Amino acid sequence: MKILAIISEFNPFHNGHKYLLERAKELSDCDAVLCIMSGGFTQRGDMCIMDKYTRAKHAVSGGADCVIQLPAPFAVAPAEIFAKGAIKILLSIPEVSALAFGCESGDEYEFFKAAELFIDESDNFKTIINKKLSEGESYIKSYAEAFEACGGNRDIVTNPNNILGFEYCKAILRAGADIDILPVKRVGAGFGDGELKDNYSSASAIRNNLTDIRISDNIPPYVYNDLKYSADLRGFHSFLRYSLFRAEPKDMQRIIGCGEGLENKLKSLENNNIEKIIENATTKRYSSSRIKRILCANALGLYADDTQNFLGADLYIKPLAVKKTRANEILAALSKSVYPVITDANGKGLSAEGEQCFDKDRYEFAVYNHINGTDKKDYMVLV
Amino acid sequence: MKILAIISEFNPFHNGHKYLLERAKELSDCDAVLCIMSGGFTQRGDMCIMDKYTRAKHAVSGGADCVIQLPAPFAVAPAEIFAKGAIKILLSIPEVSALAFGCESGDEYEFFKAAELFIDESDNFKTIINKKLSEGESYIKSYAEAFEACGGNRDIVTNPNNILGFEYCKAILRAGADIDILPVKRVGAGFGDGELKDNYSSASAIRNNLTDIRISDNIPPYVYNDLKYSADLRGFHSFLRYSLFRAEPKDMQRIIGCGEGLENKLKSLENNNIEKIIENATTKRYSSSRIKRILCANALGLYADDTQNFLGADLYIKPLAVKKTRANEILAALSKSVYPVITDANGKGLSAEGEQCFDKDRYEFAVYNHINGTDKKDYMVLV
Repeated sequence: MKILAIISEFNPFHNGHKYLLERAKELSDCDAVLCIMSGGFTQRGDMCIMDKYTRAKHAVSGGADCVIQLPAPFAVAPAEIFAKGAIKILLSIPEVSALAFGCESGDEYEFFKAAELFIDESDNFKTIINKKLSEGESYIKSYAEAFEACGGNRDIVTNPNNILGFEYCKAILRAGADIDILPVKRVGAGFGDGELKDNYSSASAIRNNLTDIRISDNIPPYVYNDLKYSADLRGFHSFLRYSLFRAEPKDMQRIIGCGEGLENKLKSLENNNIEKIIENATTKRYSSSRIKRILCANALGLYADDTQNFLGADLYIKPLAVKKTRANEILAALSKSVYPVITDANGKGLSAEGEQCFDKDRYEFAVYNHINGTDKKDYMVLV
Repeated sequence: MKILAIISEFNPFHNGHKYLLERAKELSDCDAVLCIMSGGFTQRGDMCIMDKYTRAKHAVSGGADCVIQLPAPFAVAPAEIFAKGAIKILLSIPEVSALAFGCESGDEYEFFKAAELFIDESDNFKTIINKKLSEGESYIKSYAEAFEACGGNRDIVTNPNNILGFEYCKAILRAGADIDILPVKRVGAGFGDGELKDNYSSASAIRNNLTDIRISDNIPPYVYNDLKYSADLRGFHSFLRYSLFRAEPKDMQRIIGCGEGLENKLKSLENNNIEKIIENATTKRYSSSRIKRILCANALGLYADDTQNFLGADLYIKPLAVKKTRANEILAALSKSVYPVITDANGKGLSAEGEQCFDKDRYEFAVYNHINGTDKKDYMVLV
């Protein structure tokens, strides 16, 4: 079986995701689509508006054959680690032969070329960056200039969607993996475009307009019907606040992207409401996404040293939802992974680091249930 | 200087408290009134509707000369420990010569008689209790019967207000202290009577009717004016929930009155809202006040073993508010205590256990500020 993989958050699953799945299936010669998806919390430090099993179910309804979990230490992490973690798990499954992702522009050649340029970083490349920096350009602009001068497409390293694809390619190249990539040009709204469109709005536009009837044109009906189970995001904000209050600065320094005094800055803001904390900690140097991700990682107990360990360790394949009619063949394919396949909350047969990583996922799931006032069980669902 | 002491919560300070202060001053031959008051959280596990400095200021405005803090490990504890802790601190000040308290009935003789009976527990007393119990009477009723048969006044050990006075007398007798007691018959509503009265409502009736204009007849104007700073009790409930979620059952077993499986029962309810948690954990054996006190102690990190240590240790006198015109003489009197007088958040000169107890107060104050979204400083105020 040839498997096409997709790395995702699906918060929530919308028409754009459905299009990506359908288009990627058309373009590739794969037999099945496997999504690897964040649990209850995302790369930008948000709590997902629906729990991971509900979202995984939607993805299967929308065309995926199976959804497995991206462990929390990678899911709530900067793009590079998010990509590395996802690729690491996907590559453990020999049947995975291609990776599709949404992008603004660029083809397979341009993405790999960009990744190669980044990894090689020739003397010429470095010289140009330094020259531009000395001329007073920002790092991101200097980088893009050098990139272009060395034959790369600057769009690949500047557009938010492309950047994730670029990170996937870097991770694939670094792993020396034999896997095709399939960039699929997005339709409709750009990533993070907060405005509601006719049929293809961004996930954030949908989240910002949950009570607007027009979102029913932007998400499949099985997603729309489940919106009534949306999470209590005020409860999430309280949880972030209390977790910050309870945290020791020395533990916060262990969070990726924290340290350099940012831990003390955040602690000094702990008695404010969460909007104020984010607003007052955000600077040119520290984006609001980074602040939110740090607050979320703190609440979930996700630390850089653990995450680095997990990146080098034997982990696990945790299916969240599988298409009922194909469950046997899909699970058989997954079981060829060098990692154990775990379909429940027990996590038997794990390595020591795998067990630690699994505990982070267990805790993350417990936090989701707690904030949401629910008691969902951590078992794979058949759709 | 002869000091009259009053043990209090003042949540909030109302006409009944003011009456107690005035009446006690009339009846005693003391030169000053010293209140010892809970910090931000009470014996029944509530978060006070105003912070400790505001409440202390009200008490001074209402007739006290000084208010010192009852450390949190005693304040959020069953009546016996609440009383023991308060008496321990008061007795460290040689100038304290009398203790006044509100009661439903009884005089000095009856209260001390009741305390003596309890401490002695004669064979006759025990025989009567066992007889009544074997006849199927409840423990509290059997106890009251035995009490009466031995010459005590049963009202003293059955009425909620009297019980606190009874506990104070027990603590005084046990400490072998030379101190008078001054039971002052309460006017108006009984303790915990939730209904608003004309002028003398209970503190709980006032708390339950904060938006009712009629409460202005029940509290002094300086208290009424400060109601606008009332605490966010929903935030408190979230804090209790998250603290329960984060707690390990083995730590919860260390809370006074927890254990016997109650810790697991509470943990099993952690994903519910706080009303549901209290409702479902309350039984004939475990009162709702006890459940609330356990949840609060858990959130503040107050444990039985620490509290026992503190009861036997050198502690501190922490004035919260002092009457400006008498500050010098009052602070001079307090400084005769065998414990150091601490007027700020630093706590210099404390014993090892005193430092640990002071840390519990520091944390309790930080929690109050955090829940309330405030940043009040922990310094004595002059009124």
